[in-house]
Amino acid sequence: MRTSRLEAFSDGVFAIAATLLVLELRVPPETTDLPAALLRLWPAYAAYLVSFLTIGIIWVNHHTVVDQISHVDRRFLFINLFFLMVVAFIPFPTQLVAEHIRDGGANARDAALAYGFTCTFMALSYGLMWAYAARGGRLLRADADPRTVAGITRSFRPGVPLYLGSTLIAFASAAVSVSLFAALAAFYVLESSIFVRTEDGA
Amino acid sequence: MRTSRLEAFSDGVFAIAATLLVLELRVPPETTDLPAALLRLWPAYAAYLVSFLTIGIIWVNHHTVVDQISHVDRRFLFINLFFLMVVAFIPFPTQLVAEHIRDGGANARDAALAYGFTCTFMALSYGLMWAYAARGGRLLRADADPRTVAGITRSFRPGVPLYLGSTLIAFASAAVSVSLFAALAAFYVLESSIFVRTEDGA
Amino acid sequence: MRTSRLEAFSDGVFAIAATLLVLELRVPPETTDLPAALLRLWPAYAAYLVSFLTIGIIWVNHHTVVDQISHVDRRFLFINLFFLMVVAFIPFPTQLVAEHIRDGGANARDAALAYGFTCTFMALSYGLMWAYAARGGRLLRADADPRTVAGITRSFRPGVPLYLGSTLIAFASAAVSVSLFAALAAFYVLESSIFVRTEDGA
Amino acid sequence: MRTSRLEAFSDGVFAIAATLLVLELRVPPETTDLPAALLRLWPAYAAYLVSFLTIGIIWVNHHTVVDQISHVDRRFLFINLFFLMVVAFIPFPTQLVAEHIRDGGANARDAALAYGFTCTFMALSYGLMWAYAARGGRLLRADADPRTVAGITRSFRPGVPLYLGSTLIAFASAAVSVSLFAALAAFYVLESSIFVRTEDGA
Repeated sequence: MRTSRLEAFSDGVFAIAATLLVLELRVPPETTDLPAALLRLWPAYAAYLVSFLTIGIIWVNHHTVVDQISHVDRRFLFINLFFLMVVAFIPFPTQLVAEHIRDGGANARDAALAYGFTCTFMALSYGLMWAYAARGGRLLRADADPRTVAGITRSFRPGVPLYLGSTLIAFASAAVSVSLFAALAAFYVLESSIFVRTEDGA
Repeated sequence: MRTSRLEAFSDGVFAIAATLLVLELRVPPETTDLPAALLRLWPAYAAYLVSFLTIGIIWVNHHTVVDQISHVDRRFLFINLFFLMVVAFIPFPTQLVAEHIRDGGANARDAALAYGFTCTFMALSYGLMWAYAARGGRLLRADADPRTVAGITRSFRPGVPLYLGSTLIAFASAAVSVSLFAALAAFYVLESSIFVRTEDGA
Repeated sequence: MRTSRLEAFSDGVFAIAATLLVLELRVPPETTDLPAALLRLWPAYAAYLVSFLTIGIIWVNHHTVVDQISHVDRRFLFINLFFLMVVAFIPFPTQLVAEHIRDGGANARDAALAYGFTCTFMALSYGLMWAYAARGGRLLRADADPRTVAGITRSFRPGVPLYLGSTLIAFASAAVSVSLFAALAAFYVLESSIFVRTEDGA
Repeated sequence: MRTSRLEAFSDGVFAIAATLLVLELRVPPETTDLPAALLRLWPAYAAYLVSFLTIGIIWVNHHTVVDQISHVDRRFLFINLFFLMVVAFIPFPTQLVAEHIRDGGANARDAALAYGFTCTFMALSYGLMWAYAARGGRLLRADADPRTVAGITRSFRPGVPLYLGSTLIAFASAAVSVSLFAALAAFYVLESSIFVRTEDGA
């Protein structure tokens, strides 16, 4: 399969998953006091923001990865498919956090855990995909720049520990855990991720 | 990243956001008098029409912008991502207006404000995106026509004031505010927008 | 705008509208007798089938049309946008027919009318789009085959009368009207439409 | 129609159908004990996994098929459309299995039957599509490798019997039937499907 088809299908899943997030935003139909109902939804707005940016960051980085690849094999296709399955799952824990983070107690904890483990699996399958492609240059372009490849490898390293750590903090405080996911998304957007800076020649 | 990938992802979000609007149209399942229920839904039909056209106009203009650009950098990608996040949000305030504009009072006002601020943010991030690309020719094609570039810049100028003004009118009358959003969409469709006329060589 | 972008956006709307149809298929959550509930849903299965095929036929024919076109202008873009708005609307009347055709009386009649007028508007805007492109060869390719162009023009002619006639029959019998929409979809699939036969050189 | 347009539209339907699966995952809004509610949803997670992988496998194999084809005719287009209609239907029986497999009795049986017959129809229309294209080399590329073609033909043979057999087992045990669908998806992912191995030159 050409990498262009892989990109098109993956981009489709990213775009749909991100755009479906808005369907989680619902004012209860029997609302009589809309202003109050809209204010009560603030965790849903925040969750929409964080998940949309997270999927957007995934999309930007996916291209950086695929651009280094000359061809794909069946194992890579299925690792990518597993990865897409996790990304397409994100709207569900997003809804859980939006609706239950203010419940406190076990509800808030489990909503944060569901969100965090989804992100951790996403980072894990993402890193696995890159490791599979880059191991011994298996799927890389002949003219792939070694510094860019090393930069991407470096940039994937902190993903799983950061997400897993933020997830486990939910056992102490769901609010802190969820704030860390927001901070991670903001960090990735504001700060250049390492491998993109490398690619830009910095 | 190639501009073609940016366009494909953006077009995907536009197409999905526009097509999801129909999911907001729902007859209550326990309806026994369907003809009356269908008539009562008229604000939902109008909201579907206005939001679909608004997203369509955004789509048409997005290509005019991207056609002037030779390459994108990470900042541009993330401004575009923020912009897409606002566009993908449109179905939510559309539903609010559809369901609450006839409530009157604070409900109608806040539905109109939610719709209007979403459109204002959309226009703001859209204009920011273009300003970032065009400032000093940063991302423009070497052969970009200066008159077309100036025309696009001019055409973006009234967007934020027009949307913000129409939004603030909701504090006086939600119905007038919402009618102005419809009029803005109709205006953009019926009247050639300035930069497209310029591009056509007028 | 290149016709390839127009096709990509239109195809996106077609694919999403067709795939969203499945969301209308819902077993009531409190079902205790699933076998009976599944049988009761048969109008929903039929409506899914007819609307999916209708959108599929639209998709196939849209390419036949666009293949004859060398370029698009703003008016064509907005006629196409209006047309897409009607196609993206199809899931709503599909749901109405699925849920209310067995109600009988005014409910069944209005569900059939909603479906029929949507299809009629679709055919109307589709024909208008082609008429605008073909009038005096306005947007046609220089090497467009006159026989193919004439064949497409001929094939669009019966669309509006057929759909409008089938719609108006709902005032006499909603069941007959809805059966005619199914028959039209089946006819278009089974029988080669005139212009495609022409294009194939028959 | 060019095969690239057929692929783009089909990929769109695959990506949307797979990504819509997450919408079936819903915690009842009135949940007070979220941890228990999340655990009770396990059949929904399993159904999401199996259906997402099944659609992913369909996507991978669709390209293998289309890569052997030089052109498409109207009959092929409509066979493909019927096939897409079945694939886009998958979220509905997925929801049925997710919600009713633990009901036992006729509910579980009919949920499994709905899932199984959908998969069987999918395999049937998929095989029909290939048979139509390959019969006498009707739509194949002039340079199609006879061994790859024979490999694809061989690989399609077991699809219908396997799915139909797994479906009919639901009359004895819905749980066994559904487990077999999961096993089939896992088998296709883990084991190279025959035609891909052939294509790789094995």
